[in-house]
Amino acid sequence: MTIEQVVNFLKTNDNFEILTHNYPDGDCLGSGYGLCLALQQLGKNARVITTALPKDFQFLLKGVKEQDFKTECVVSVDVADEQLLGCNQEKYMGKIDLCIDHHKSNRVNSPLKFVDEKAAAASEIIYRILTEMGVTLTQEIANCLYTGISTDTGCFRYTNTTASTLRIAADLLELGCDSEYINKVMFETKSKKRVELEKEIYDSMIFCCDDKCAIIYTTLEMTKGLEDEDTEGISSIPRQIKGVKMGITIREKPDGIYKVSVRTNDGLDACRFCKQFGGGGHAAASGCTLNGDLQSVIDTLIEAAERAL
Amino acid sequence: MTIEQVVNFLKTNDNFEILTHNYPDGDCLGSGYGLCLALQQLGKNARVITTALPKDFQFLLKGVKEQDFKTECVVSVDVADEQLLGCNQEKYMGKIDLCIDHHKSNRVNSPLKFVDEKAAAASEIIYRILTEMGVTLTQEIANCLYTGISTDTGCFRYTNTTASTLRIAADLLELGCDSEYINKVMFETKSKKRVELEKEIYDSMIFCCDDKCAIIYTTLEMTKGLEDEDTEGISSIPRQIKGVKMGITIREKPDGIYKVSVRTNDGLDACRFCKQFGGGGHAAASGCTLNGDLQSVIDTLIEAAERAL
Repeated sequence: MTIEQVVNFLKTNDNFEILTHNYPDGDCLGSGYGLCLALQQLGKNARVITTALPKDFQFLLKGVKEQDFKTECVVSVDVADEQLLGCNQEKYMGKIDLCIDHHKSNRVNSPLKFVDEKAAAASEIIYRILTEMGVTLTQEIANCLYTGISTDTGCFRYTNTTASTLRIAADLLELGCDSEYINKVMFETKSKKRVELEKEIYDSMIFCCDDKCAIIYTTLEMTKGLEDEDTEGISSIPRQIKGVKMGITIREKPDGIYKVSVRTNDGLDACRFCKQFGGGGHAAASGCTLNGDLQSVIDTLIEAAERAL
Repeated sequence: MTIEQVVNFLKTNDNFEILTHNYPDGDCLGSGYGLCLALQQLGKNARVITTALPKDFQFLLKGVKEQDFKTECVVSVDVADEQLLGCNQEKYMGKIDLCIDHHKSNRVNSPLKFVDEKAAAASEIIYRILTEMGVTLTQEIANCLYTGISTDTGCFRYTNTTASTLRIAADLLELGCDSEYINKVMFETKSKKRVELEKEIYDSMIFCCDDKCAIIYTTLEMTKGLEDEDTEGISSIPRQIKGVKMGITIREKPDGIYKVSVRTNDGLDACRFCKQFGGGGHAAASGCTLNGDLQSVIDTLIEAAERAL
């Protein structure tokens, strides 16, 4: 599918629901609300479906109209797999008309699909679609897309950042996006609770495979009373240690479920690592879910790391 | 002075010494070696004068020829004040022919001066000069300039980042600069010692002015055996705490000297704050030096913060 065909599909249809993935991040929300604002600007009905809207992302809602309509088209953004729809999975499984994504591992089953794995963020694709569509890129839309691009690139630090990513960000700055506010909230602000959590994480850090692998974890006890924003981005901590090739973050969730994030350096394949546990993602940043108790999850991951390294 | 006049000066002269400031950072070193490589490419003699070259910046030397010549021209880059030349101050005081800088507070006393305070980094100005000069921007030059621009903008997070900054960075990526390596070394790598230091810093954090001001310090004891790179960038830690408007970092140096970095949020003037102690810098990031013992330095700064906030 070409960008032109995506544009044509969006222009000739109406009454859109835009799906985002569970544990929503800046990119799926920025893509979703950016696209929603654009469709509403064209006089169409649209709404974003999300499992949650963390406090730090509520500014994305600015300018979005609440509309009452009967859904005709379902578009997913930044969703690599229908299993990632969370509590919306049952309702929307097999009902996605158009899937817009940038994950190499995408396996959404939809009749129309536009996946560009070279795009640093789904929001980068949405920018190209909206430009092609002739939408006026308002400050609100620019804020949405900048949020998506900056969060998915670690504010242009990660290797997915391309010249095109930086030029789109430059355009968004000129369109008046409030990068000062967004960068501050997304990258420059830590609550006092977050600082406490980081101290605990550093204390509990486990090294294995000759210090080539570092593992951190958060338990329900450690994250009790913390907001989502307090624990956001901790998965970048272990990979940052000098000499570490694989950084693993384990987050305890209720009912013995452990959410695992794997970040790698030096071309080590995180996606392959996570696939053996039914997960996936990008080559340098992937995730999976394990069940059991903390120690057995740690042991399983150490064993797998020893095989991979 | 216009860019064209700077270019004309560089083209019609030869045998350059390029001065950087003490406690050299990515921007003065990136500007310096970038300009040096360009002048050597034009068949001229040039060398960079620096008080130190931290290990993490040694890759900037790639392609730089060591040349033996009698100095005819002295150019300073990223030097806001001749007092910041460190141990080179005596030798070069009053001898700078051309000053290239981006600090608003610049007060270098030189016959020729090109100061653009809108540039996020001196390296951004050097990029414009080299482009205007018709120099071939090699991968080595691109690495130097990308290092300067990315380090002075906190990898495009700080408010000094403009659309122009991002577009120059995009050009540098296309010229083949190794942003993956540079970002990893500058922003994504922490030694185990650094992690230990951060824990100590968090433990020693002082809040004042209704938590609007946070102060951290490092003593000689705390930084014993650490490399410069282990303590780099700690001054961004206190300002990151939610609600903090002024983050102050105190670094003990030998002989009862304390180097103070002040970072501010919400338009609070860090430069004005530091000027009362004989320092200066940018509106949101400035520095000064105090003498005495740690407790008296802390008390002095708390008093000043209470007046400012």
